[in-house]
Amino acid sequence: MPRRSIDFPAWLAGRVQHIETVLDQVLPPATTTPARLHESMRYAVLGGGKRVRAALVYAAGEASLQPGTAASAQEIALDHAAAAVELIHAYSLVHDDLPCMDDDALRRGRPTVHVQFDEATAMLAGDALQPLAFELLGMMPIAPALVVQGTQLLARSTGSLGMVGGQAIDCASVGCTLTPEALRQMHSMKTGALLEASVLLGGIVAGAGSSARQGLETYASAVGLAFQVVDDILDVTADTATLGKTAGKDAAGNKPTYVSALGLDGARGLLKDLHAQARAALLPLGPAAAHLGCIADYIVGRDH
Amino acid sequence: MPRRSIDFPAWLAGRVQHIETVLDQVLPPATTTPARLHESMRYAVLGGGKRVRAALVYAAGEASLQPGTAASAQEIALDHAAAAVELIHAYSLVHDDLPCMDDDALRRGRPTVHVQFDEATAMLAGDALQPLAFELLGMMPIAPALVVQGTQLLARSTGSLGMVGGQAIDCASVGCTLTPEALRQMHSMKTGALLEASVLLGGIVAGAGSSARQGLETYASAVGLAFQVVDDILDVTADTATLGKTAGKDAAGNKPTYVSALGLDGARGLLKDLHAQARAALLPLGPAAAHLGCIADYIVGRDH
Repeated sequence: MPRRSIDFPAWLAGRVQHIETVLDQVLPPATTTPARLHESMRYAVLGGGKRVRAALVYAAGEASLQPGTAASAQEIALDHAAAAVELIHAYSLVHDDLPCMDDDALRRGRPTVHVQFDEATAMLAGDALQPLAFELLGMMPIAPALVVQGTQLLARSTGSLGMVGGQAIDCASVGCTLTPEALRQMHSMKTGALLEASVLLGGIVAGAGSSARQGLETYASAVGLAFQVVDDILDVTADTATLGKTAGKDAAGNKPTYVSALGLDGARGLLKDLHAQARAALLPLGPAAAHLGCIADYIVGRDH
Repeated sequence: MPRRSIDFPAWLAGRVQHIETVLDQVLPPATTTPARLHESMRYAVLGGGKRVRAALVYAAGEASLQPGTAASAQEIALDHAAAAVELIHAYSLVHDDLPCMDDDALRRGRPTVHVQFDEATAMLAGDALQPLAFELLGMMPIAPALVVQGTQLLARSTGSLGMVGGQAIDCASVGCTLTPEALRQMHSMKTGALLEASVLLGGIVAGAGSSARQGLETYASAVGLAFQVVDDILDVTADTATLGKTAGKDAAGNKPTYVSALGLDGARGLLKDLHAQARAALLPLGPAAAHLGCIADYIVGRDH
């Protein structure tokens, strides 16, 4: 597939900078009562992260934008959707890092929320980030029927049959050998569901029709899985400083990964297939999907 | 205010039985993967609880129902709204009971979720109940604009400026003396916000106009506070077997309560005032609000 000549790094850097501003605005100020809770929510969300989910929302919005629709309302709606998925992602990291879960002290090169604050505050920060995400979706200035679709999508993808369900399977599978199929199922819930929701939310907000949504779904599914395969590869090939989190932790914790299931070469082969699937799914969307294509390249490229 | 001759206990028992059936249906079966997570969610939600919040949704729906609207769609919508507030309430109890929070082993006369299962499962159960509540609201078969209003309301009332914020203030205030005003603020967030949201959700779903909503708001605010005042009184006057949870825990934990701030007589005087406020707010709503009035009596009557 021919690649368009676009300055993707500049676009991505611009989106990352923009979503930081949006997140700073939608989070209550650290001085608002209860101040310690709001401080911890801001600590959990701001000042770090690759913002891949926000970038997927924006890029899918670009790919789906209908001519003649009010651009400013859509821009605001995409900001809300992008912020919502980043808030959900941040909450999930805060809870995953807690002692009763992964018990991790380092995240994005900084102390995790329960280390910086305390366990109760970390749990409550996560608990409060979640409804803020739904509140933001509810404030999107687009047709209420689309708002409801977006809310439904985010709710399903983050619940017991999505992200949290995947986390529960992950917890239960420590020390077990999962088949590649069971591993795929777990990751498609734990990591894939929110990445997919990010892509589809961008499409919904921008008014994507059913054929465009189908392309986005195939793309999202491949990219969501690719993301996890790369994470598993990096867990054994990168060091802690590069990752900003503890390297080798999955292997040491005897967690099933794509590398443990398929070997390093097998995992890299799967990654290559997923990359091709994602790229192919974008073909019908044309040049407007260029940034989505670049994000797929970027995610796969984290391995290098 | 004259009381209508209605069989409130029978109505309440019927609603409690009905919402149990609804909750049983909306929760994924315990056999669905991840089974342990779904078991724990069902354990947390089913088979106990006074269902005050669900009853408030139904009674406020009755009080606000517009003539000529499709009754069956409204009934389904009220079921979803009632289930949503009960799921949120259940999640908040599961997280409040965790060792890093109140560290309570007993709830509704049974082991708490983290005792019955484990801490990680309890946290994930709470995390998954929350989006299920928003998913249910999104499935209400009423005008999408009303669905969005309801979602917004639930999100705000459960976030850092509502329920979770109140919990954070409560955690931070252990061992402190709060002024009656600060105590009122904390409880209006921690307990009041969700009770108020329950009343207003019923009104929104049933298409209440602005004057009816105003009456519901005043009622809800008084009832929300009364509920906490009764809880504080019961903490010092009732025993563990009656409460189904550990009695005297707040006093022993040096937590500020209405009894510690106002004394037992002062707390009972406040309760009487709140009861009168709630009753007065219902007058403009007429006989359709009879069950709301009875719920106010019922909440206040828990003290006897």
